[in-house]
Amino acid sequence: MKYEVIATDGKAKRAHMETAHGVIETPVFMNVGTVAAIKGAVSTDDLKEIGTQVELSNTYHLHVRTGDKLIREFGGLHKFMNWDRPILTDSGGFQVFSLSGLRKIKEEGVTFHSHIDGHKIFMGPEESMQIQSNLGSTIAMAFDECAPNPSTREYIENSVDRTTRWLERCKTEMKKLNSLPDTVNKEQLLFGINQGGTFDDIRMKHADTISKMDLDGYAVGGLAVGESHEEMYRILDCTVPHLPKDKPTYLMGVGTPANILEGVARGIDFFDCVYPSRNGRHGHVYTDEGKRNLFNKRYELDSKPIEVGCGCPACRSYSRAYIRHLLKAGEMLGMRLCVLHNLYFYNKMMGEIRIAIEKGCYMEYKENKLALMQTASNEGKQEVLT
Amino acid sequence: MKYEVIATDGKAKRAHMETAHGVIETPVFMNVGTVAAIKGAVSTDDLKEIGTQVELSNTYHLHVRTGDKLIREFGGLHKFMNWDRPILTDSGGFQVFSLSGLRKIKEEGVTFHSHIDGHKIFMGPEESMQIQSNLGSTIAMAFDECAPNPSTREYIENSVDRTTRWLERCKTEMKKLNSLPDTVNKEQLLFGINQGGTFDDIRMKHADTISKMDLDGYAVGGLAVGESHEEMYRILDCTVPHLPKDKPTYLMGVGTPANILEGVARGIDFFDCVYPSRNGRHGHVYTDEGKRNLFNKRYELDSKPIEVGCGCPACRSYSRAYIRHLLKAGEMLGMRLCVLHNLYFYNKMMGEIRIAIEKGCYMEYKENKLALMQTASNEGKQEVLT
Repeated sequence: MKYEVIATDGKAKRAHMETAHGVIETPVFMNVGTVAAIKGAVSTDDLKEIGTQVELSNTYHLHVRTGDKLIREFGGLHKFMNWDRPILTDSGGFQVFSLSGLRKIKEEGVTFHSHIDGHKIFMGPEESMQIQSNLGSTIAMAFDECAPNPSTREYIENSVDRTTRWLERCKTEMKKLNSLPDTVNKEQLLFGINQGGTFDDIRMKHADTISKMDLDGYAVGGLAVGESHEEMYRILDCTVPHLPKDKPTYLMGVGTPANILEGVARGIDFFDCVYPSRNGRHGHVYTDEGKRNLFNKRYELDSKPIEVGCGCPACRSYSRAYIRHLLKAGEMLGMRLCVLHNLYFYNKMMGEIRIAIEKGCYMEYKENKLALMQTASNEGKQEVLT
Repeated sequence: MKYEVIATDGKAKRAHMETAHGVIETPVFMNVGTVAAIKGAVSTDDLKEIGTQVELSNTYHLHVRTGDKLIREFGGLHKFMNWDRPILTDSGGFQVFSLSGLRKIKEEGVTFHSHIDGHKIFMGPEESMQIQSNLGSTIAMAFDECAPNPSTREYIENSVDRTTRWLERCKTEMKKLNSLPDTVNKEQLLFGINQGGTFDDIRMKHADTISKMDLDGYAVGGLAVGESHEEMYRILDCTVPHLPKDKPTYLMGVGTPANILEGVARGIDFFDCVYPSRNGRHGHVYTDEGKRNLFNKRYELDSKPIEVGCGCPACRSYSRAYIRHLLKAGEMLGMRLCVLHNLYFYNKMMGEIRIAIEKGCYMEYKENKLALMQTASNEGKQEVLT
C-alpha cells in the first residue's frame, strides 16, 4: 500500500492511494452494497458507469446471509460480485451493536442473535478478521464497539480501552491471516477505528494511542449516531489532528453532501453513507439546487431530467414526470433511476472536491456549494437539504 | 403502414412491417411494460440493449393509474417513456374482464370498478379508442370481450356478435380520432380481435367476418385463458387460415417458448406474454437446455453464467451463484438480471426463428429447439419447460 498526499488546502487533503485492487483518488465516497449488492437493482457494471471507486460491503450481513465461507470458496467477494476495484468491508461491529437485540459483551467478544433467524453467533476481533479475510476485501476494518449515544463517561472509558485491546488483537490476527498460503487477498489492509463518544479528551487520547500502532489507515467511528452536526464537526476538529497525516482517514457512516464538504475541510479522505441509495429508493434525489421529492405533484408534467445537465443514466434519458409516475406506480425502475442519480451526484461531487483542493480553492468551492443548496432551500424551491 | 411477407416456410410467415415508429421484423415477441415500465427495474434503454423491437403497454393500467390524459399532455407514451420504437397498446378489455370484480356488460360498453381505488369507470369501444389515441401508441387493439373459459355456446355467440359490433365502432372512432388536428399519432393502426372461445365454427365464422373489415392487422384473442395447449393449437389450425395472409396476425398473451414455436408454425407474426418477466422475478430463467430455478442449491457455487455463451447483460458479467445469492437476499438486482436474461432469450429466439424461415428450414429448427429443451428436462438436468 502506498498513500501519497498530492495536495493540501487548509486541512483538506487530496491523496492517491495504491491498493491491491487499483488506485483510490481521495477524498472519496464509497458506495454501500450491504449484501454485495447496491440496493435499488444497481450492479457493479452500473457502478463503473457512474464513477464509483470503492464499493463497501457489510461483514455482518454477508456472514449471516450467504456466508463468508461460501464466498471464500468462490474466490472472494471481488470474483463473486464481478468487481475489480477496491472493496472496503466493515467489521460487523456496528450491526452487532445496532441490529441484534440481546447481546453480551465480554473481553473475548460479543455473543448475539442473528436478525435473520435468531441463531446465536459469537464475534470477536479474530472472528471479524477471519470473516473479512474470507471475503478478501481490499480494506478490512478493525472490530470495535460503537457505544450507544448518549453514554456515561465511565462507560465510554471502559469501552474505548477494550476497543484498543481488540485493535491489537485485530492487527495480530490480520498479520497471521495475510501470511497464510491460501488467503484470498494477502495484501488486505487494516484500518483502526477511533472511538470516545462525545468526550473530546477521550477521543484525542485514543487517537494518540492508535496512531502509534502503524495501521494502514484510521477511521473516526461512533459518529452520525444521533449527535448534532455541530457536535460531530467539533469532535472532528479536535480528533483528526491527533491522527497521522500520512495515512488515510475515514469518517464512518457520513453523510449528507454538507457533512462531506465539512468533513473534507477537516482532513477526511474516505466517506460512506446509505443516504443516496436509501433516499433514492424513496424518490428523494440530490441536486445542486437541494433535494427534490419526486413524489411532489409539481413534477407531474415536468419534462426536465432530475438535474438539468447531469450526465447520469437517469438524467440522460428520463424526465421527472416519468420517474414520478414509476415511483407512484411502485415500479422498481423508479427506485433504480433515483439511486443511480444519487450515487452519481455524490461521486461527481467528490471529483469536484478533488479538483478544488488541487487548485487551492477548496474553501471557496465548499462555501459556494453550500450556499447554492441552501439558497434553493430558503427560497422554498426545494426541500431543505438533509 | 406497409406489411410485406418476405419469406414463407409452410404456414410460417417472415414479414417486414413499416410503422410510424419504424420497422418491425416478424415473427416478433413484444416485451410487456404494463404501466409504461418493464417490471424488474428494466428501462427502455435496457430494452434497446437486449434487442426489443416492440414494447407493449396496458391501456387499463395507464388509464386508472397515471392517466392517459396526462400522458397525452406530455406528448404521448413514446415521449413519456423515451422509446422511439413501436408500441402496441391493448384495449383494456382483458383487464376489465379479469381484474375488476363487479362489472356490467351492456351494448354500449362495460361499467366496472377500478382495482386501485374502486371508483366506477365506464369503458366502451369509443372510450378505449380515445384512451389509446391519447397514449399515441403505434398499434391500438380493438375493444372486445374476452369471454370466460369455459362458456356456453349461447354465451359465446352473443359475446362474439357484440364484439363484432364493437369492432365496427372502434374502426369508425379510430378513423375520426386519426383525422383530428391535435392527435398524438395520426397514423395509429388498429388490429381487430378474433374471439369464439373453444368453438371452432364460431372462431372461423368470426374470422371471416372481421377479415372483410380491412383492418391493419388481426389478433386471435381469448386463448391462453385456461384451455389446454392442444386445444389452443387446434383453434389456431382452424382459425388462422380464415384471416388475411397479407396482414399481420397476433396471438395475444402467448406464451412459453414452445407455444411461440408452434404459433409461428401456424402463421402467427406477433406474440406477447408476461412469462419471461414474471418468471425472471421469481428466479426462473430460460435457456436452450430448459428452464432453471436459480433458487436451487445446486447453483450455490456455480461460477457459470445463466446460459453459457449468452450475450445478455446478466450473462456477460454475473454467475449463477451470485444471482442466486441476490435472489435469496431479496435484492432487486437479482430480479433485474433474471428479467434481462429472459427477455433477451425470447428476443434472440425470435431472431433465430426469422432466420430459419428465411432459410426454409423452420420445421427442422423448431423440432431441434423443442427436442433440446425437452431432452434436458427428461434427463432431470433442468426443470420441465413451461
